[in-house]
Amino acid sequence: MSLIVQKYGGSSLATIDKIKKVAENIINKKEEGNNVVVVVSAMGDTTDGLINLAKKISDEPDKRELDGLLSTGEMASASLLAMAIKEMGCDAISYTAYQIGMRTIGDYGKCLIEDLDDRRINRSLRKDKIVVIAGFQGINSIGDITTLGRGGADTTAVAIAVKLNAICEIYTYADGIYNIDPREYDGAKKLEEIDYEEMLELTSLGAELLHLRAIELAQKYKVPIHVGLSFGNVEGTIIREVNTMNMESKPVTGIATSDEDVAVTIKDIYSDINILSNLFEALASKKISIDMISQTAPIDGKVNVSFTIPKESLGECLNIIDDFAERENVYVDKDIDKFSVVGIGMKTSSGVAAKMFKLFSDNGIEVKMITTSQIRITCAIKQSDKQKAVELVIKNFRH
Amino acid sequence: MSLIVQKYGGSSLATIDKIKKVAENIINKKEEGNNVVVVVSAMGDTTDGLINLAKKISDEPDKRELDGLLSTGEMASASLLAMAIKEMGCDAISYTAYQIGMRTIGDYGKCLIEDLDDRRINRSLRKDKIVVIAGFQGINSIGDITTLGRGGADTTAVAIAVKLNAICEIYTYADGIYNIDPREYDGAKKLEEIDYEEMLELTSLGAELLHLRAIELAQKYKVPIHVGLSFGNVEGTIIREVNTMNMESKPVTGIATSDEDVAVTIKDIYSDINILSNLFEALASKKISIDMISQTAPIDGKVNVSFTIPKESLGECLNIIDDFAERENVYVDKDIDKFSVVGIGMKTSSGVAAKMFKLFSDNGIEVKMITTSQIRITCAIKQSDKQKAVELVIKNFRH
Repeated sequence: MSLIVQKYGGSSLATIDKIKKVAENIINKKEEGNNVVVVVSAMGDTTDGLINLAKKISDEPDKRELDGLLSTGEMASASLLAMAIKEMGCDAISYTAYQIGMRTIGDYGKCLIEDLDDRRINRSLRKDKIVVIAGFQGINSIGDITTLGRGGADTTAVAIAVKLNAICEIYTYADGIYNIDPREYDGAKKLEEIDYEEMLELTSLGAELLHLRAIELAQKYKVPIHVGLSFGNVEGTIIREVNTMNMESKPVTGIATSDEDVAVTIKDIYSDINILSNLFEALASKKISIDMISQTAPIDGKVNVSFTIPKESLGECLNIIDDFAERENVYVDKDIDKFSVVGIGMKTSSGVAAKMFKLFSDNGIEVKMITTSQIRITCAIKQSDKQKAVELVIKNFRH
Repeated sequence: MSLIVQKYGGSSLATIDKIKKVAENIINKKEEGNNVVVVVSAMGDTTDGLINLAKKISDEPDKRELDGLLSTGEMASASLLAMAIKEMGCDAISYTAYQIGMRTIGDYGKCLIEDLDDRRINRSLRKDKIVVIAGFQGINSIGDITTLGRGGADTTAVAIAVKLNAICEIYTYADGIYNIDPREYDGAKKLEEIDYEEMLELTSLGAELLHLRAIELAQKYKVPIHVGLSFGNVEGTIIREVNTMNMESKPVTGIATSDEDVAVTIKDIYSDINILSNLFEALASKKISIDMISQTAPIDGKVNVSFTIPKESLGECLNIIDDFAERENVYVDKDIDKFSVVGIGMKTSSGVAAKMFKLFSDNGIEVKMITTSQIRITCAIKQSDKQKAVELVIKNFRH
């Protein structure tokens, strides 16, 4: 008999009919002889609806009260799902964050799970009940309701799986993880497995399938996450530690692309560490997230520096730059696609970057900027080259 | 400086605009130099909406899960109201039942308040905050969420007023308590004050303005309840202990009428205590609420017995009676208005019943059944006589 923690997202619970379908799915797992703990998100667009209510009151709603408000969505869906399971003849019980002592630290709206008290869950499991838990929420040290940030129910599920030493299954709108977003590319291929680090890179590059912190937590405690379709019986993808010794022939696991950024270049800036650090500090203080910084070597004590920022921050960014550089020395390139390949095999397989740049150059793809990590290469290319770049990488790297 | 517990119902909080108006009202009270604790119901029809969701899952949703589900409505409105108050520049904080240790006993869906822990409320008041509390909900001894039954937020407010030794103000759709429902009779007059017992009688007769148990609790601890309009500055009605010595000239405080019942008469039933008690037990076991029982004196060991029941229970009632009496001995009268006059002055003022019946008889109003309590006279009359009866009582009794 296995102990399984399943997590269902809002789209899987959007209507009462869908909730009933999820209940059936859970009962099947139970009847196969497993103990089941279920973590739920709020139904469908409930969270957005609640945020809209709050926004009608204030452009910046009080964060403590907003967390209290948002937490009700998951409480409601947990109660409804437990009700549905019981109605189908299987015993079930729902718990809110405070009922399982889901202790958090940190700021409202983005708190971190510290620990939870699994005694009530275990008592209910011993009584052969299916346990349904309101995800996304916790209680901080002063007894306030806190939330884990959008997508946080994934992290709730992993935390409970860690605590209970259980298998973790995350059911979502996708039937697994693909080497590239299957909604954008027909040739996308579903992965059987993916390493935590690869998944972290892909997620931070914009693959929105899972909550980033859920992956970090799973990696820390080495809990595999099974990602699959809510109502299908297809095989999904397992996120786990992948043995890189077997992976030399597969340097590229996934590709991520993003058109959301612009590149800003400042020419002839004095290579004084203070100027640049003051500039980046000023940008950060306005919460403008800077990516892909690259700087040329100094000539006559002057350097050129380029970085990418989200499109919508451009205006604010240029205002800030005015304090540091003449406007005629500032260049903006809006035709940027951030193109990333991720693969844990890169750690042991050298020459991936070289091979990729040769491919691009042979095929007329201009590489405007480059940044790399141990398992990722990101380059800025023209948006019109994106499709070609994807096809070249898929064709030329085994994955 | 006074400490005031205010309660706002769902209709006062139905939209964000109404919530903002309530927030203004509260801030005014605060700025007049009072400390304010606010108890809220769920916004508008939220509770009905949640019940409908549950009913789509089950005709009889699991009671524990239903309580968990319903409690989210008040949590959400408490957060939103606190947000709105803060947005207007006044400090506020919301609490759920578990955050103020609102301990309950008894069944899900109709639990009773045992006690609450006022430390967090007091700490927040000392910090000059307006405290907003989710009404209608509690936590039982095993840590489950429970609800107090429809209208239960009134009882939450009174319980908190008792605990804090505060003034209790209940804001509702009506601007006070009238001698008769002002939505039905133009000549209705607002009362300055009404005794707890009178209010209890009127409420159990169907005046739905307040939760019955809120009045009982206020009576027990002698906490006056001020009932008034959410956004008006008009004087409302105070529910409190009324000195009957000053009341001899005012025997009738209020009138209540109800067309919701039918009268059932069984003729020639053997005057055997077991038969009648078995019949009433059988009806009670089906949760058919029996009212206005009257029985004639036995003739030849046989009696006639009449009682009223809610219209919708008639079919089930007749089925049960089949076990106790022949169908030809059972008479049903559907043309029944339950007409009640209530007044604590009746305790000291004799002849009220006699005067009323003479008035009715002089004016051709047939009195079909009668029951009385110390401060109430109820008679069943024809529905077509209701308007005339109201006018006669209003004209002929000072009130």
